[in-house]
Amino acid sequence: MKKSIGAKTLAFPTPVWIVGTYDKEENPNVMTVAWGGICCSKPKSINISLRKATYSYGNIVERKAFTISIPSEKHVKEADYFGIATGKKVDKFAATGLTPVKSDLVDAPYVKEFPLILECKLIHTIEVGLHTQFIGEIIDVKADESVLGEKGLPDIEKVRPILFGPEIRTYHGIGKYLGQAFSIGKEIS
Amino acid sequence: MKKSIGAKTLAFPTPVWIVGTYDKEENPNVMTVAWGGICCSKPKSINISLRKATYSYGNIVERKAFTISIPSEKHVKEADYFGIATGKKVDKFAATGLTPVKSDLVDAPYVKEFPLILECKLIHTIEVGLHTQFIGEIIDVKADESVLGEKGLPDIEKVRPILFGPEIRTYHGIGKYLGQAFSIGKEIS
Repeated sequence: MKKSIGAKTLAFPTPVWIVGTYDKEENPNVMTVAWGGICCSKPKSINISLRKATYSYGNIVERKAFTISIPSEKHVKEADYFGIATGKKVDKFAATGLTPVKSDLVDAPYVKEFPLILECKLIHTIEVGLHTQFIGEIIDVKADESVLGEKGLPDIEKVRPILFGPEIRTYHGIGKYLGQAFSIGKEIS
Repeated sequence: MKKSIGAKTLAFPTPVWIVGTYDKEENPNVMTVAWGGICCSKPKSINISLRKATYSYGNIVERKAFTISIPSEKHVKEADYFGIATGKKVDKFAATGLTPVKSDLVDAPYVKEFPLILECKLIHTIEVGLHTQFIGEIIDVKADESVLGEKGLPDIEKVRPILFGPEIRTYHGIGKYLGQAFSIGKEIS
């Protein structure tokens, strides 16, 4: 028997992604999002949701581009800080000592110290309510050579991404390997 | 120095969620999605992306409702199977021995054996390309009492959700607790 716990934005896992943007004065800004996901394979696209009140919202509307930098668990404090502070008041790169790098493909900066980044051009804007959903086409994915594994793809156990639990407000690392997708289920049928 | 690995739908982590729907004959169906995320806090909403070719696509268009059942890692094989088989040809519940339960709030079934479920009503349909994005308002969240922790909320370490690595096609469990959100970042500034 399941117990109702009410209408909540509660699903596991949600990601911890750092959205990079430039403001009108070319100042780089970053903010943390957990409301987001991949949303299309062709065009290759990813969605993130931001409140209009955020500094990044205006930057994306203006520049029509953003990056997603995926932090490793060793930077969980910085990732949390990026979601607490506002770019309206502080330079989050200066505060953390992390380094903005200008993308050569889209009009947005990414975080040099984070191992995996996506460079995105805005292709859709959907007004859902308190949050606006931005869908970006993934123009390129870049990774530190140190996290690459088989076939030149990022090894998730080297990237060590962070996941967020909404409502319980906790961060977790990734755990044990459970199996190969589109494969282990073939035993059934 | 980061290495370009090309435009790919590659971001970590992505979820492993089971979408539950009814077809025109009231047959319950389930499919696995990794393209999805929470997208708005008011209305409380979640998005999933499906190809038009899937059986579930037509069901959602018709019924304007779906559920999301979040499997524990012990059901990783069933979760994988739900993404391999098609409801056009097989009864995935019968094949796995899992149990469909009719939601009392929305016109869709969920998976009894999975510990955390969301009941959703369709509020937006966005044509992105190969995938259509469905945004559902979260009407209720239900959880097995056995996974509830502090404050009556689901404990992620009891739910033990699965995460998916796109491109590398691997499933992983959740790992160690890294800290409290909106808290550990306060040390910086």
